[in-house]
Amino acid sequence: AVEFNPVDHPHRRYNPLTGQWILVSPHRAKRPWSGQDEKPSTEQLPSYDEKCFLCPTNDRISGDKNPDYQGTYVFSNDFAALMPDSPEAPQSTNPLFKTQGVRGLSRVICFSPDHSKTLPELPVEKIRNVIDTWNDQIEELGKDYIWVQAFENKGETMGCSQPHPHGQIWANSFLPNEIECKEHNLKTYYQENGRNLLVDYVEAELKDGSRIVVETEHWVALVPYWAAWPFETMLLPKTHIRRMSELTDTQRDDLALAIKKLTSRYDNLFQCSFPYSMGWHYAPFFEQGTNIDHWQLHALFYPPLLRSASVRKFMVGYEMLAESQRDLTAEQAAQRLRDLSDIHYKEQK
Amino acid sequence: AVEFNPVDHPHRRYNPLTGQWILVSPHRAKRPWSGQDEKPSTEQLPSYDEKCFLCPTNDRISGDKNPDYQGTYVFSNDFAALMPDSPEAPQSTNPLFKTQGVRGLSRVICFSPDHSKTLPELPVEKIRNVIDTWNDQIEELGKDYIWVQAFENKGETMGCSQPHPHGQIWANSFLPNEIECKEHNLKTYYQENGRNLLVDYVEAELKDGSRIVVETEHWVALVPYWAAWPFETMLLPKTHIRRMSELTDTQRDDLALAIKKLTSRYDNLFQCSFPYSMGWHYAPFFEQGTNIDHWQLHALFYPPLLRSASVRKFMVGYEMLAESQRDLTAEQAAQRLRDLSDIHYKEQK
Ligand SMILES: O=P(O)(O)O[C@H]1O[C@H](CO)[C@@H](O)[C@H](O)[C@H]1O
Ligand SMILES: O=P(O)(O)O[C@H]1O[C@H](CO)[C@@H](O)[C@H](O)[C@H]1O
Repeated sequence: AVEFNPVDHPHRRYNPLTGQWILVSPHRAKRPWSGQDEKPSTEQLPSYDEKCFLCPTNDRISGDKNPDYQGTYVFSNDFAALMPDSPEAPQSTNPLFKTQGVRGLSRVICFSPDHSKTLPELPVEKIRNVIDTWNDQIEELGKDYIWVQAFENKGETMGCSQPHPHGQIWANSFLPNEIECKEHNLKTYYQENGRNLLVDYVEAELKDGSRIVVETEHWVALVPYWAAWPFETMLLPKTHIRRMSELTDTQRDDLALAIKKLTSRYDNLFQCSFPYSMGWHYAPFFEQGTNIDHWQLHALFYPPLLRSASVRKFMVGYEMLAESQRDLTAEQAAQRLRDLSDIHYKEQK
Repeated sequence: AVEFNPVDHPHRRYNPLTGQWILVSPHRAKRPWSGQDEKPSTEQLPSYDEKCFLCPTNDRISGDKNPDYQGTYVFSNDFAALMPDSPEAPQSTNPLFKTQGVRGLSRVICFSPDHSKTLPELPVEKIRNVIDTWNDQIEELGKDYIWVQAFENKGETMGCSQPHPHGQIWANSFLPNEIECKEHNLKTYYQENGRNLLVDYVEAELKDGSRIVVETEHWVALVPYWAAWPFETMLLPKTHIRRMSELTDTQRDDLALAIKKLTSRYDNLFQCSFPYSMGWHYAPFFEQGTNIDHWQLHALFYPPLLRSASVRKFMVGYEMLAESQRDLTAEQAAQRLRDLSDIHYKEQK
């Protein structure tokens, strides 16, 4: 009988955070590609663009004028998906037609006044500013909302309509699906094992080593065992941190360094501004006194590129109707990222 | 107090098939768009392309030669994501590193020898051939595999690398996530209510009318109450049909007509070949004797376009990390599709 080998044999891996499986078909990476090309972002942008809505001193669509900001700059999204004062929805009598009223708000965070500098191209101190801004926003909005999603869509491929480096914050009066599901799975593991799932996981990953991409004093970035996107990573602290506000100054500085290294490796992979969606998960703002020890702060990076700056993975037909599928193993992806320099290609030599 | 109005107020809707919520932000459709453009497919292709791997009499990459087929044509995918004989994976001792060996196979179904004719452009009799081919494949593979996913990725936007009209069949030795989840929710509803969820749902939708897009003698296509994609639809029979094989000849002919009408409305919306992923869900091939009365055959259409032939909805940052979000209500989408002709724009006048 042939012995199982994850690099040759299709298999599924289980994501204990979502309870979902991922189909891994590593032998499939060999197929030719004649489909859609992405526009790789390799162009050098100017530091200031007079037509950009996010550059300092420019006018936005709303008519507001951006200040001449120097660090990060936060403003209310002019086209928010949520409103702070929408009414409750009436209750439905039929369980097949269930509606729920929601409240919330959306803000935009400009990472830098420099139109041309994405996260990996910013100096570590400037990335540290972004981290502090994330934390301030999350803490402020966490007073009114149970969930605050901080995220960045980077690159046109990820639906980003503005090249100016920025992220978003959406505050919610409800726990979104992904958080509700993680809350359930983290809590169950904690109740069954008396331990934190992600703390246990990082410990096991550090021991194994094969999926680690970046390790700094306090942080580790790895391709999760159950990654769905080709070069998906998770960024976690080495100690138990339930929310960003619990991080020390040293841990924040070190996080800035870890982000710089991880995103530089990403850009180096195909020598382009690597598109992704990234964001933070951590303990929701439950009522004071609720036990949140089963939560561990972590960032998720979902980058779509697969083979080159212009060929992405499509999560379509089979994936939408049945199950996520990937064409290389998590270990292969981690190896590829590890083999690169952690100095950004534009900052090399 | 302001009264709740689904067209003005953000809200969530519940999908009883997946147990997930969808965030609906209808007021957001007004925001401007300066992001990525899709390449709309409006070009007229030739009926035969000598460089196409799927056209009759041409050579494929594998070296095989396609016959001079007249109707549909099925062959093994030269780069299958699954293999019929992969070994079992060894059991892991750590619940955070769970692997499962899988077996399966992938086939390609050419819908027509004509390189230029997508589903809506085929005559009803030719669509009927596609239905029969789906059914034959599902029944044949269902003898060996518990799940057989028939689907089509249409258009470059949906990762389709071949404009020649074709779909795929992936057979699985396991229940993929989406099917496992539906099995659970359909069964629970059946046990609690003694009725079939989707049969009840169609009955309620036909009575309401506001989300119906196409109605034929035996079939109905509607924008589900909980749709996530802008113009998502579900196509269902009006009676209880657990698998495609249970359809009568008349029901199959009528299904071909319903598909023709629905996909013509899609193409008419932005006067382009409307991209989507579509596929069939129905009772899995459980062991003989297992009760499958909670299942109802249905097709799902997931089209990405939002505002025009070149502006799509991106399910990115917030959606990936938190929850699916849409910019128009299901009723608005259904109304838009209903207002169009069901005669394909190329076949009009
Ligand atoms: O098999 P194809 O058409 O080459 O590939 C397409 O469909 C597959 C099944 O949905 C996906 O896994 C691929 O990402 C997509 O590009
Ligand atoms: O808010 P933006 O950047 O205009 O829009 C982008 O991010 C949002 C949040 O992930 C998505 O809902 C949109 O589909 C996407 O285009």
